[in-house]
Amino acid sequence: MEGGAPRAPGLRAYVALSQLLGLAALAATGAWLGRYRGGVAWAGALRLNAHPLCMVLGAVFLQGDALLVYRVFRTEAKRSAKLLHALLHGSALLVAVVGLAAVVEAHGEQGIAHAYSLHGWCGAAALALYALQWLLGFGFFLFPGAAAALRGRYKPLHVFGGVALLGLSVATCLLGITEMLLFNIRDSYSQFVPEGVLANTLGLLLVTFGLVVGYIVTREDWKRPPLPEELALSMDFKTLTEGESPGGSQ
Amino acid sequence: MEGGAPRAPGLRAYVALSQLLGLAALAATGAWLGRYRGGVAWAGALRLNAHPLCMVLGAVFLQGDALLVYRVFRTEAKRSAKLLHALLHGSALLVAVVGLAAVVEAHGEQGIAHAYSLHGWCGAAALALYALQWLLGFGFFLFPGAAAALRGRYKPLHVFGGVALLGLSVATCLLGITEMLLFNIRDSYSQFVPEGVLANTLGLLLVTFGLVVGYIVTREDWKRPPLPEELALSMDFKTLTEGESPGGSQ
Repeated sequence: MEGGAPRAPGLRAYVALSQLLGLAALAATGAWLGRYRGGVAWAGALRLNAHPLCMVLGAVFLQGDALLVYRVFRTEAKRSAKLLHALLHGSALLVAVVGLAAVVEAHGEQGIAHAYSLHGWCGAAALALYALQWLLGFGFFLFPGAAAALRGRYKPLHVFGGVALLGLSVATCLLGITEMLLFNIRDSYSQFVPEGVLANTLGLLLVTFGLVVGYIVTREDWKRPPLPEELALSMDFKTLTEGESPGGSQ
Repeated sequence: MEGGAPRAPGLRAYVALSQLLGLAALAATGAWLGRYRGGVAWAGALRLNAHPLCMVLGAVFLQGDALLVYRVFRTEAKRSAKLLHALLHGSALLVAVVGLAAVVEAHGEQGIAHAYSLHGWCGAAALALYALQWLLGFGFFLFPGAAAALRGRYKPLHVFGGVALLGLSVATCLLGITEMLLFNIRDSYSQFVPEGVLANTLGLLLVTFGLVVGYIVTREDWKRPPLPEELALSMDFKTLTEGESPGGSQ
């Protein structure tokens, strides 16, 4: 899972930390739903609990790991890294859509309106933009037809959008945690009951995961160095677009 | 408020958009508190309403504008930009501390526990880290004693921390909006009542402000170009530290 460490001191440790935080967030979600919310099932009231589990797994953990691909496999061929990046984002999107289906069906069954809250608005925006970003990424970077100049112009927006969408996804999860606590333990939340402390801790784990992933992918000296064969291409490409550094290889 | 446009096409328009979004968020906060929550005062129950107003003004709008200083005044002397950057962050911190006092006093009067919720935890973390970041920034970049090598090592962390703290501040505001709505209009929120729609819109305005500011400060070709006299210094400095690009002038 970790490569190219000689040229990126410290990267391994930060990637390991991010994975520990992501797994701890998943464990905290499982513990919360299992111990205090009756568990998870695709039937009845427990279907609603599939929503937070899918979102922590897909919209945070898998999405974050998809961003890390270019750092973790920084000395592999770019084409392989791209495919894994697209595959992880695709899996994240799929899991998030299942998570969306869980809450839509649960709300429908209980006669609750859809997407009325700030959590719902942020979630809808995040999911729509995430799907759009995936399609654009596929069209520009994996589909063979896109011109190099177009790719170069879209790339910085794709990179910014990726980090921004992880941030928005984490924020949406925090809103969901707050809603769930205020709907279920509104009166005891302020007495620091264990469920509240556990769910707050989950929130901080998600924030810290997002921060560590964001730090890893934006740190200049950990960026993926272009391979020798890419460098020649990249220099031609720079001449074409006059704006892209040959070192800025996603 | 806008300078250096010839070498940064598009920057003016994005800065103008950010200011419109920030002012719209402030107006939406005022409208929400004034029309649906009885207004703002430093006495009785209305003191609690000073909290969101201070936080949208200090922890989001002023904090965001402090980040924009190096882009808006990108052709001014660096020392002047630094001073304004520190001054705006200092004002943001001051306003946020007043906002914190408002909620602490209101909770104290009403016998509500402090900082029990995820909103409280995120807010406490954001404010503590923000104060720390201000002190470190002052110590490294404004106080004359700091060695150039130390400054160069701290700078990328300072820049990442600045953007991350704006993101965390916006997320904390979204949590506060959700709490306030669920405590006040829990039963009618799902019927898309005007107060809920207005407060959700405020949330989206804050998110969009954060995204636009984040985009402006991280876009590579809008970065502050070093002035000729800084370039010489910067090259010496690069030789000393072997890691800093002379173009990466905050």
